[in-house]
Amino acid sequence: MEMRVAPVLVRYGGVVLPPGFRFHPTDEELVVQYLRRKAFGLPLPAAVIPDLCNLYKLDPWDIPGAASDDGERYFFAVRPAAAAAGGGRCRRQLQATASGFWKPAGGRDKPVLASRYGGSHLVGVKKDMVFVPRRGKGSEAAAGCSWVMHEYSLALPLRNKGCLAQAEEWVVCRIFQRSRSPRRPADHDARRTQRRRSPSTSASSCVTSSSDQEEVSSG
Amino acid sequence: MEMRVAPVLVRYGGVVLPPGFRFHPTDEELVVQYLRRKAFGLPLPAAVIPDLCNLYKLDPWDIPGAASDDGERYFFAVRPAAAAAGGGRCRRQLQATASGFWKPAGGRDKPVLASRYGGSHLVGVKKDMVFVPRRGKGSEAAAGCSWVMHEYSLALPLRNKGCLAQAEEWVVCRIFQRSRSPRRPADHDARRTQRRRSPSTSASSCVTSSSDQEEVSSG
Repeated sequence: MEMRVAPVLVRYGGVVLPPGFRFHPTDEELVVQYLRRKAFGLPLPAAVIPDLCNLYKLDPWDIPGAASDDGERYFFAVRPAAAAAGGGRCRRQLQATASGFWKPAGGRDKPVLASRYGGSHLVGVKKDMVFVPRRGKGSEAAAGCSWVMHEYSLALPLRNKGCLAQAEEWVVCRIFQRSRSPRRPADHDARRTQRRRSPSTSASSCVTSSSDQEEVSSG
Repeated sequence: MEMRVAPVLVRYGGVVLPPGFRFHPTDEELVVQYLRRKAFGLPLPAAVIPDLCNLYKLDPWDIPGAASDDGERYFFAVRPAAAAAGGGRCRRQLQATASGFWKPAGGRDKPVLASRYGGSHLVGVKKDMVFVPRRGKGSEAAAGCSWVMHEYSLALPLRNKGCLAQAEEWVVCRIFQRSRSPRRPADHDARRTQRRRSPSTSASSCVTSSSDQEEVSSG
């Protein structure tokens, strides 16, 4: 393996970075710096999250674009407000795809707090969802993997400002696959390696991760 | 909480980034893009890893600089070659600090492979170490936290090229704290949140994480 003398830069979505840097936003950053700006029509800090308005209508394996090397993909999507207000069957029907539907993974929605200026402000809501394929659909499900979506929406007081229409709102979603029978690592260290490129970790073993990073010769 | 119209940029070490981007290198990136370049005296892709030649002589709580918001710190350090060659007591004495010593955490050293060009090349070795305080020393240890070091060195064939001296070599180290009684999360998702800013996760609960990120107004 040769070594180039000039450092290599890596294109990550629309951003050119030195190697080792990744888009690993906190919940707060996703909501405050990206989703809020999107909903208000303000310029975004970086062009790393594409719009995919019909995200909820797509089977997860049909979602376009390659996952990053850690198997994550981020999208802005448009959610009918009814999906937020109504639970259960209403939401399920709105989010049905050709081969199944996205179902809340159980557990309460998690508030997203902004910690700026010493206080804690509610800025968003994080909802964990899992894709439930109908019988006979979804070969990935049979292989022991499930698709997970973290859906971030703006907190209620902000919801109707600057949205697409009265009955629609922007959300930002993180989508990835996870093993259905994850190993239980003995310590923090093992958990950390989940986020690194590691072919031996069970959680990423079924992600067909074609990297979206490409090298750029530095100037 | 006001929202500025111009996107905010964040200074991360020597690199200015849009929010949400972090230095989360893979093992391969750390060794190939940073440690190898350091050892060969080549320009580094980014000034994000400071030199701390006497790292092994410092108690972990005396290591300078603030941890990033996920509690990690990276340093280039100089290791006596004897520490690599000799195990056990030799290594321990070389790496003794005022209040304890760094001890291999058990388990084999992990090879770091470069996956470029379809093949797998051994480029480095990752050694996990844990800080063992002497009795009565290290209040952090009593609080249920331990200090962990991931020490990356170049693979044997490269070790003596371009090093400081015949008996010394550059290593790159990742240092962080972890809980001694980590929770065992039920799924991959819980493990993922370990890498995000989450005050409720046990693994990061004892890290006094003062962020080293500062905001920069974008031009």
